[in-house]
Amino acid sequence: MSAPQYIGVDVGGTSIRAARFAGHSHVPVAKTKVPTQAAKGAEVVLQRLEAAIRQTAGHELDNVAGVGIAAAGPLNPHTGVVLNAPNLPGWQNLPLKQLMEDRLHRPVFIGNDANLAALGEWKFGAARDHQDVLYLTISTGIGGGVIIDGKIVEGAKGTAGELGHMTIDWRGERCNCGNIGCLEYIASGTGIARAANEAIRSAEGIELLAFARTLLEHSGEEELQIDAQTVALAAEAGVPLARAIIQNAAEAIGAGLVNIIHCFNPEMIILGGGVIQMGPMLMEPALRVVQERAMKVPRESVRIVQAQLGANAGLIGAGALIYYYNDAYISG
Amino acid sequence: MSAPQYIGVDVGGTSIRAARFAGHSHVPVAKTKVPTQAAKGAEVVLQRLEAAIRQTAGHELDNVAGVGIAAAGPLNPHTGVVLNAPNLPGWQNLPLKQLMEDRLHRPVFIGNDANLAALGEWKFGAARDHQDVLYLTISTGIGGGVIIDGKIVEGAKGTAGELGHMTIDWRGERCNCGNIGCLEYIASGTGIARAANEAIRSAEGIELLAFARTLLEHSGEEELQIDAQTVALAAEAGVPLARAIIQNAAEAIGAGLVNIIHCFNPEMIILGGGVIQMGPMLMEPALRVVQERAMKVPRESVRIVQAQLGANAGLIGAGALIYYYNDAYISG
Repeated sequence: MSAPQYIGVDVGGTSIRAARFAGHSHVPVAKTKVPTQAAKGAEVVLQRLEAAIRQTAGHELDNVAGVGIAAAGPLNPHTGVVLNAPNLPGWQNLPLKQLMEDRLHRPVFIGNDANLAALGEWKFGAARDHQDVLYLTISTGIGGGVIIDGKIVEGAKGTAGELGHMTIDWRGERCNCGNIGCLEYIASGTGIARAANEAIRSAEGIELLAFARTLLEHSGEEELQIDAQTVALAAEAGVPLARAIIQNAAEAIGAGLVNIIHCFNPEMIILGGGVIQMGPMLMEPALRVVQERAMKVPRESVRIVQAQLGANAGLIGAGALIYYYNDAYISG
Repeated sequence: MSAPQYIGVDVGGTSIRAARFAGHSHVPVAKTKVPTQAAKGAEVVLQRLEAAIRQTAGHELDNVAGVGIAAAGPLNPHTGVVLNAPNLPGWQNLPLKQLMEDRLHRPVFIGNDANLAALGEWKFGAARDHQDVLYLTISTGIGGGVIIDGKIVEGAKGTAGELGHMTIDWRGERCNCGNIGCLEYIASGTGIARAANEAIRSAEGIELLAFARTLLEHSGEEELQIDAQTVALAAEAGVPLARAIIQNAAEAIGAGLVNIIHCFNPEMIILGGGVIQMGPMLMEPALRVVQERAMKVPRESVRIVQAQLGANAGLIGAGALIYYYNDAYISG
């Protein structure tokens, strides 16, 4: 008899990724990646989700002890209902757990993608053997996961840990979430790109615009689109405006880290997501803000480290969901 | 044989208050209040603390099962060391637990005053029977206590819950704590008074100044000192600047509440402290900000209520510390 199998799935706005794990391992024995086709609506995405899971299971579906699904946006892990997935049109109050159990006849659990990435990093990545850990992922958006006393903090309705939607600029601009001056609005990849695209409409952005046009000529793409990656390349090439935009985002991340340190006094903060990959030009100003602003005792007791599992953290956490969170998710 | 006795103590910058409780009750059987005489240094305060506890104990000291002491500022409840008490000169790295056990020959435990007020409100006040509760106290400063899954969150070194030192204005002014744009800097009683005192040095403050002078004439005091209470009275009397200052503080509190709601998704937020006593002129703008800005799911699942134990919450929590937190505080 073979080890029990677990399937983890990450449902993003662009791709559905699934992986199968044998026993309590984070090294997949099979992987699948398909386009989400989110614009086609919930029913199509559910079909594609089922197909991706079946493909990943191969002949092993009967041997799958559970399927964990990571999704963005507010969802209730206890009831298995996705309240609203911002990147998946039509996903409002969707009973995802029930719908997938009806299709697969296997136990299904769902979790917030940032929480499950935190679970992955905690059990298999940067935070093994720690009990008070904050996970912050900075990419298109900014998400968080909170582990206190060796448990993921879900909150009353499963939405705890929305660390990207802390206000750090209370008289600032309105975020997509409805709040004002969120960390995500300022420091996410989207925020960095917005700042750049606003700047190139004015004279101050002329050098950045020229840099982006040169990139465009070499890329073979047709439309000039300045994203966070372009800004990072321009900053590396020494374009002052790009450097200033990255520095602004980095300092905002530093302010967010100070808030996390003051609220939680964690042992460790794990930083993940694509924006963090920008390296020292992002991390140095962020850590300088922490050094300058955070209270001494919690500052000196926290380790701020990079995530180890990269883009697979959520997938790995989803695979581990059933055996690490079985009780919590069933009983709620 | 009588019920075991517990003594709770609150060491403030102005007064030391102690209360004795019989069994698991929050109604004191004896109380003492003495001036702290903080300026005379740590040794004098320790003597006064011992005297206040002995007076509260009466003939019952041998029957006292434990003494809980609430103090401000970062302290480590596990080791019993006060790291730094901002309102008590000379209290740096003071092994308060050990020093008081040597004097009293009874078990002593220490805790952050806001955490112990949270414990009091949770066990005897507004949050009975809840498991995910945030406590925010807004008076001279702003403190917090975090209860998750039925436990007070201490963090790695016991400093978790410094909710007043969340940045909400990351390009703003420097707080006493060293951080920038803290909620406390803007919305505490001290912050409200600072805004008023800055304003009366300019022409816009002339009406507020006149109001404060009239109050002064009726009070018999000699020096014109505009505190948060004066600003509140002026706002009630319709002085526009005073109303604007209170509204600004209220909206900052609202932004802080949104951060708490997004980070913790609590069942309940308890608001305590003197500034909250200003009533609707403070609470209405604060709750309007929550209504306008917080995400729907966690906003609709949180109850925001007033504290029930008033200024005694910390004292009551300190008295309950030994039987609710014995294990956690000893084992840490």
